[in-house]
Amino acid sequence: MVSNPGRRTALLDAAIEALADEGARGLTFRMVDGLASVPLGTTSNYFTSRDELLTQVAAHLYVRFAPDPDELERAASASTLDELIMVMQGVVARLIERRSVYLAMLELRLEATRRPVLQQMFTERVREDLAANVAGHAASGMPGDRSTVIVLYVALAGLIIEQLSLPGVLADEGSTDELVALVVRSVAG
Amino acid sequence: MVSNPGRRTALLDAAIEALADEGARGLTFRMVDGLASVPLGTTSNYFTSRDELLTQVAAHLYVRFAPDPDELERAASASTLDELIMVMQGVVARLIERRSVYLAMLELRLEATRRPVLQQMFTERVREDLAANVAGHAASGMPGDRSTVIVLYVALAGLIIEQLSLPGVLADEGSTDELVALVVRSVAG
Repeated sequence: MVSNPGRRTALLDAAIEALADEGARGLTFRMVDGLASVPLGTTSNYFTSRDELLTQVAAHLYVRFAPDPDELERAASASTLDELIMVMQGVVARLIERRSVYLAMLELRLEATRRPVLQQMFTERVREDLAANVAGHAASGMPGDRSTVIVLYVALAGLIIEQLSLPGVLADEGSTDELVALVVRSVAG
Repeated sequence: MVSNPGRRTALLDAAIEALADEGARGLTFRMVDGLASVPLGTTSNYFTSRDELLTQVAAHLYVRFAPDPDELERAASASTLDELIMVMQGVVARLIERRSVYLAMLELRLEATRRPVLQQMFTERVREDLAANVAGHAASGMPGDRSTVIVLYVALAGLIIEQLSLPGVLADEGSTDELVALVVRSVAG
């Protein structure tokens, strides 16, 4: 196995674009080579199998999703409902802005229904994130409890999926920021 | 174009299975022929193009999702929060039970990010459904207003996607029925 970390990252970034553009079944080693502008065969030198490529892309999604330090600081110091709304508006805006990354994640989550290795990896990762959110929420003194975090998690995921895949459905209900405020007020208010 | 309605329906049902099993890019005329056990070339006699097949499958999803008359009656006569919870538990259970249909819909919604015709068709259909839900909710006297219906719609969609794609994530939080009750109480209570 070759292991130039910079090139590996470039291949994983290209795989994310391939997933978003073509879907999970459209992702091939050859397509990643093309999108990353590397010689044909490079991707297959970095990843031993399709399962390995998909699992590493899934892990790389979280690198690409990572919030900047300012956002983490605002989240840690939020304590009122209005601050919770602003924090959630920031999270949703970041995920929607990183459109390819979120669409690639949805493709991989559907692919995970067919690939146990991928399903296990995603499940562990999402559970960790959710546990960290529950702990962070409790520590912050923001309104609501564990249930609030769980309901916000599914509701905001549903909203992001709607806005990315069918942006016309909720267009008359307000901007994404307004919809996030509506959800958070409704769940945590 | 051939137009034996029974056979057309069988082809559309097979296409739903193909989408759920293989993803949007895995769906081919040839695969639908195989799954429907019809002679090779049959599917291409019924649908002039891939866009036509995908658009007709999208419309057929709603036939396969249709509630039975009992469920519609319960929904129409519900007026308390507990009745709203039971109605929503019924809706979510029905959609999760029709696993292939829901997964096929998610595949098509992602495909819709790349196909304007499909996006337009889905957007109109989901907007109609949502408007009917808002009207039905207002007429029933159930707790909550238009915003409640919108927030319930995104939250329950998020919950269904989670339970279908990564069932282990919320496994410790309760059964799907309990999670639906949690969401509805949180949003409409």
